[in-house]
Amino acid sequence: MPQHIVIIGAVALGSKAAARFKRLEPESRVTLVDRDKRIAYSGCGIPFYVSGEVSDVPELQSTSFHVLRDAEYFRKSKGVEVRTETEAVAIDRAAKTVTLTHLPSGRSEILAYDQLVLATGSKPVIPPIPGRELAGVHTVHNLESAESIRSLIASGNVKQAVVVGAGFIGLEMAVALVDLWGVETTVIELREQILPGVIGGNLSLTALRHMRDKGVRFQLGDQVLSLEGDGQGRVARVRTKHGEIPADLVIVAVGVRPNTELARVAGLAVSERGGITVDEYLRTSDPHIYAGGDCVELHHLLTGSKTFLPMGSLANRQGRVIGDNLAGGESRFLGVVGSWCVKLFDLAAAGTGLTLQAARSAGFNPLSVHVSQLDRAHFHPDRGVMSLDLIVERETGRVLGMQGTADRGDALVGKVNVIAGLLPSGLKVEALTSLEAAYSPPFSAALDILNVLGNAAENILAGRNRTIQVDAFAALWEQRENGTYFFLDCRERSDAKEETGANPEHWINIPQGELVDNMNKLPRDKSILVICGTGARSYEALITLLHNGFQDVISLEGGMSAVSATGLGVS
Amino acid sequence: MPQHIVIIGAVALGSKAAARFKRLEPESRVTLVDRDKRIAYSGCGIPFYVSGEVSDVPELQSTSFHVLRDAEYFRKSKGVEVRTETEAVAIDRAAKTVTLTHLPSGRSEILAYDQLVLATGSKPVIPPIPGRELAGVHTVHNLESAESIRSLIASGNVKQAVVVGAGFIGLEMAVALVDLWGVETTVIELREQILPGVIGGNLSLTALRHMRDKGVRFQLGDQVLSLEGDGQGRVARVRTKHGEIPADLVIVAVGVRPNTELARVAGLAVSERGGITVDEYLRTSDPHIYAGGDCVELHHLLTGSKTFLPMGSLANRQGRVIGDNLAGGESRFLGVVGSWCVKLFDLAAAGTGLTLQAARSAGFNPLSVHVSQLDRAHFHPDRGVMSLDLIVERETGRVLGMQGTADRGDALVGKVNVIAGLLPSGLKVEALTSLEAAYSPPFSAALDILNVLGNAAENILAGRNRTIQVDAFAALWEQRENGTYFFLDCRERSDAKEETGANPEHWINIPQGELVDNMNKLPRDKSILVICGTGARSYEALITLLHNGFQDVISLEGGMSAVSATGLGVS
Repeated sequence: MPQHIVIIGAVALGSKAAARFKRLEPESRVTLVDRDKRIAYSGCGIPFYVSGEVSDVPELQSTSFHVLRDAEYFRKSKGVEVRTETEAVAIDRAAKTVTLTHLPSGRSEILAYDQLVLATGSKPVIPPIPGRELAGVHTVHNLESAESIRSLIASGNVKQAVVVGAGFIGLEMAVALVDLWGVETTVIELREQILPGVIGGNLSLTALRHMRDKGVRFQLGDQVLSLEGDGQGRVARVRTKHGEIPADLVIVAVGVRPNTELARVAGLAVSERGGITVDEYLRTSDPHIYAGGDCVELHHLLTGSKTFLPMGSLANRQGRVIGDNLAGGESRFLGVVGSWCVKLFDLAAAGTGLTLQAARSAGFNPLSVHVSQLDRAHFHPDRGVMSLDLIVERETGRVLGMQGTADRGDALVGKVNVIAGLLPSGLKVEALTSLEAAYSPPFSAALDILNVLGNAAENILAGRNRTIQVDAFAALWEQRENGTYFFLDCRERSDAKEETGANPEHWINIPQGELVDNMNKLPRDKSILVICGTGARSYEALITLLHNGFQDVISLEGGMSAVSATGLGVS
Repeated sequence: MPQHIVIIGAVALGSKAAARFKRLEPESRVTLVDRDKRIAYSGCGIPFYVSGEVSDVPELQSTSFHVLRDAEYFRKSKGVEVRTETEAVAIDRAAKTVTLTHLPSGRSEILAYDQLVLATGSKPVIPPIPGRELAGVHTVHNLESAESIRSLIASGNVKQAVVVGAGFIGLEMAVALVDLWGVETTVIELREQILPGVIGGNLSLTALRHMRDKGVRFQLGDQVLSLEGDGQGRVARVRTKHGEIPADLVIVAVGVRPNTELARVAGLAVSERGGITVDEYLRTSDPHIYAGGDCVELHHLLTGSKTFLPMGSLANRQGRVIGDNLAGGESRFLGVVGSWCVKLFDLAAAGTGLTLQAARSAGFNPLSVHVSQLDRAHFHPDRGVMSLDLIVERETGRVLGMQGTADRGDALVGKVNVIAGLLPSGLKVEALTSLEAAYSPPFSAALDILNVLGNAAENILAGRNRTIQVDAFAALWEQRENGTYFFLDCRERSDAKEETGANPEHWINIPQGELVDNMNKLPRDKSILVICGTGARSYEALITLLHNGFQDVISLEGGMSAVSATGLGVS
């Protein structure tokens, strides 16, 4: 029997659910409601519109064949009725109706539904900073805000900008401001690293270093106290714990929270952290109401707990699941592992699963294994550097996550997606060592970096390799004068000469191939820290030293490649 | 107790097994034997040396830190003794000895082993073509042959070349000859397609078209009858079934076969097809002898039968397994799915698992699903086209393989590796629809192409979509005059005007969004073939037509994107 489906929210999830459902049940009716004028746009594309890489807003709203996804498109191409500038103000679950208000006219209407979908999305968090109402202070949450920011910049009146928050959106906006508009930009972040929560400390140093090299300023561990005006209602300065920064434009990007007011008032179950509660069919506590996208709480496949993960890609997939189930299907959305990627000027960062910190917080006893090496055959001219952190549960060898940075984003995202695909079924390190990646010199090394990462993890878990990560290594180097550690560089002489030249007393170079004949030059009463280019030769050297009776030997993970990527110097 | 390990063959597998074993058992002795002067080189790098992208042979032989992997390197850095220019001529399994002949001196020696490893590799197949002994006729099997070919080209005396065989090596050599040296090159292939056995017909047409656009000539379904000389012992012409081609250089690349003579004579089990038989520990029929790399037969994880897959990447991974087991470990090499990639000028091709044809041959009832679309957000300026074939078992929805071509090789290889990682555990289409790929507009579409491929397969398996592939479509178009089919282009008018202009009678354009209002223009007595840009709108149109009572509707998979990629015209 034909149904009437009402969907509240028409960006990613709502429009996908509508289209999928109509393909399955063409005889049924769908009404798609949105409070904005424009619908079905790519929110993730906003920074690329602000930068100018995407020239017009309609591109973000169009199909790949350049047709604008407006109400007319949904009516004619999808058979879906759309009401824009219309707000859903109340749900009567007993009567199965929803009350709509047409915003321009203020006219109200009650619409009956057979099944309802909540795709109400999220809204930006705006901390209660004095001055947040000044002109020139923006969030990045819809096309209107994107247009305001871009027209402000394009007017030529923005010389200095401050971005509050060093998450994905904050960094993408900083790239847009600096790379294409040449605006002097400072990013302020409360925590001590960029991309907090999604990437480990050493990789975030690599990303930080690259962005600083490109001209972005960062104030980490800092906090905005107030925004101050120019006396005419426009923002002029940002006052932080550490001082004052002049700013014509302030972008607040400290996160989003789910829009759940409508659901809450209707008496649907909403979690303490704020997302609408749904089961694996994406059904709310009312069997006639589904919800998905940025407004729901999801099951995390690795921690087993609930999580909030506002991502356009997830919304799209959930939209299809809801479309199926509206039509009587039994499609399930089992949960998430948390995959992401971001382009920061010429560097890409990406990851999936848990970081070391997140794994600890979730109660695991995790290990982080780092590999930093060329991303294809070392003799191929297109090569770049890729650095990966693998997060592994110590007791079981189960992989909990992987994060990385790289010069070639497609290559990095490819590696991350392999892990993302395998995580839900309980990937072990052993399986990673035997992954059969495609090989040809223009695209990878004969032993794929994922195999290398698996091998490295296996050697550490088996106790064959004993390693230290670059931040801990840098800290020991700071204390080199106390003489506890012997720093042994086992690279070739030509590669090591800069460091040995700068530190002839503390930085000793014996190439790995000459080590066996030079055992007498090494102290038996100190810890020996072995360093090479990537961590491969220092592992060989460690084996040789242990075999020759040295007890306390540690190899630097990622070698000088990691040192130079993070900018943690040793001079 | 320290052992003596003897390893015959020191390219990929032998050198890896030696190094891994020595790290596990530094107290034991390893002798690595090779009949060539140069060892531990990247055979897969040879085409890039011939092209000039890799300037010197030592680069192919070096570590990533530019140290030459010669006998001295293995002795000093790995603790492994190497005998080059030394041939193993016989194994006495009862006595556990191997007889070696030093080739320059002819001196023989008997070496005792505790465990032996056969890494004897493969040799090129040379068909019994008259004239194959002429100067200028080469195979591509080691550094000597690479140097001969490159020096011949660099001398400026090669104007026209013929490559026999359109597999990986043949095509890579054709690229090297044309792209960097401007040599007029013709590839002759016995079968009717390039990359036979590894890619489906439509994707191979895409690759063929690209290579032809770049200036390579192809004679498919042709056979070399003889090579003819210039009267002074140099090749001058290639005579084929179809005619004669002048040639100063002939490269024979019709495949390789395992070197198993030594194993066979020693009484080890060798399969009928020619590879040494090994178990999952890579142990031969003699428990003291291991074998791996190009000389063994491997278990195929999808077909369950034995296969021969000579790949450097597999040899590397097998070397580690053998190294483990020599040291008393129990590492296993469970089998292969067959992952590969190749760069053909600006196009990449890659795949994993079975092709449609291979799946049929293995007894499956398979379906091939094609998607052709942009490889990242359609509004991002760096976008390219990616085309993928997914091979699925009809009854179960189990994925049997995936092959593709793309403008951006890293992106394609990333997708292939995701599937390669999931194939061994029995990937289903359903899991592909819910793959959580990382998303950001510079790197992918919000719905990853692998999700799209999974969705497309699911719609076909469920009978919701009825499709035709581009070659079958082109054949029907050829017979358009007989009037059985109605060709309905549902793209926007501006996109369809070229085809409608050229074929006003047979190519009817009604944009998908206008279809509902134009049902009366469609014939009820014909099969309707619906065409759009990528196959997405034609699926929508098919749903609409079926819903309006049309019975016989078929959608073109991959749409005009597939038509244009394969070069199968419709004008």
